[in-house]
Amino acid sequence: MGPVHEINRHPERSRPQRAALDAVLDAALVATLSTVVDDRPWVVPMLFARDGDRLIVHGSTGAGALRHVAAGAPVALSVARVDGLVIAHTTFESSANYRSAVVHGRLEPLTGADQERALDLLSDRLVPGRVGEVRPTTRKERSATLAMALPIVEGRWTVKIRDDWSDVPDEPTDAWIGILPVTTTYGPPRTAPFSPPSAPVPASVRRLAGSVAR
Amino acid sequence: MGPVHEINRHPERSRPQRAALDAVLDAALVATLSTVVDDRPWVVPMLFARDGDRLIVHGSTGAGALRHVAAGAPVALSVARVDGLVIAHTTFESSANYRSAVVHGRLEPLTGADQERALDLLSDRLVPGRVGEVRPTTRKERSATLAMALPIVEGRWTVKIRDDWSDVPDEPTDAWIGILPVTTTYGPPRTAPFSPPSAPVPASVRRLAGSVAR
Repeated sequence: MGPVHEINRHPERSRPQRAALDAVLDAALVATLSTVVDDRPWVVPMLFARDGDRLIVHGSTGAGALRHVAAGAPVALSVARVDGLVIAHTTFESSANYRSAVVHGRLEPLTGADQERALDLLSDRLVPGRVGEVRPTTRKERSATLAMALPIVEGRWTVKIRDDWSDVPDEPTDAWIGILPVTTTYGPPRTAPFSPPSAPVPASVRRLAGSVAR
Repeated sequence: MGPVHEINRHPERSRPQRAALDAVLDAALVATLSTVVDDRPWVVPMLFARDGDRLIVHGSTGAGALRHVAAGAPVALSVARVDGLVIAHTTFESSANYRSAVVHGRLEPLTGADQERALDLLSDRLVPGRVGEVRPTTRKERSATLAMALPIVEGRWTVKIRDDWSDVPDEPTDAWIGILPVTTTYGPPRTAPFSPPSAPVPASVRRLAGSVAR
């Protein structure tokens, strides 16, 4: 986050806590996958899901970049979310509340029943209960999909959370001090014009609508 | 984004459009700065602001990692936002609507009046009008801050936008098809317990409260 000095001033914010890591990962909708190609950074945003001690990502088997990382290149999967703008009495002391995490390692391709289970888990993490509402994925669909897992290994990840006011001013001020919260929510479902006319909004989608987005 | 095949199927989604790049960058609250350290990816989330044809980031002069990228390492600054979960008749065809961008290049340290202007611009992009409400940044504060610019150079950036339903099914289905929108908004301001008792919420903060977050 911008004010990196915040993290340095408050080392407890980068204290490694596995439960905090899991919570931050599980609260993120999208991750950034970073790797190195020709000595330069290469990044792509990805949907993802945590499956216990590993992170699941997927893509088309035709996507060259994913094949590169699938071939064992070192990667970092990162998430970051701003929870509030921290308004201080000066712009210098202003900051942001946020939750971020980085997991380093190498992606392992998933095959067979493990791939099938991982893809279902990814779908069900995004829309809980959705997998049970639709037909199973076919063998052909799975063969067109590259599913990979990034193991969460002790010492190879970081989590940072800032959830605080700005520092108490060390100078006289009559300025308001506080936080402007930032919240991400699911809106009301929108039906596609080609959706079967009598099809009701499924329970999985109805359950999410109006709630705070993971 | 997860379904990378979406992008391959619809090449117009990755068509480079500078106006689209600017809009996606300006709509993001947080970016991911990626670089290479010891042949491995290194990433950190950052507040940032676009200043015409460059992106402004900042941090403490004491932060070692920022000094590394300030020394001219190749970087990628990326943003990604999910705008909706795209619900298809199968999980395979399901996807996400999103806006993402990546800008490649090298960071240039800012000094003097350019640094002062860039830091004010960063503050004012996050909370428009805030700079005019508080005392100016001091020379001491600026000397503790590393401000850097990443030039936006033609051919060194990509922007991807998916804003569509899932594909029309090529199999019989009675499943609902649609989109679950995802929206990020600013909530009501929260006042710090040590805020001067009579200080009103400033106009800059009141203007943002309740609106869709950039």
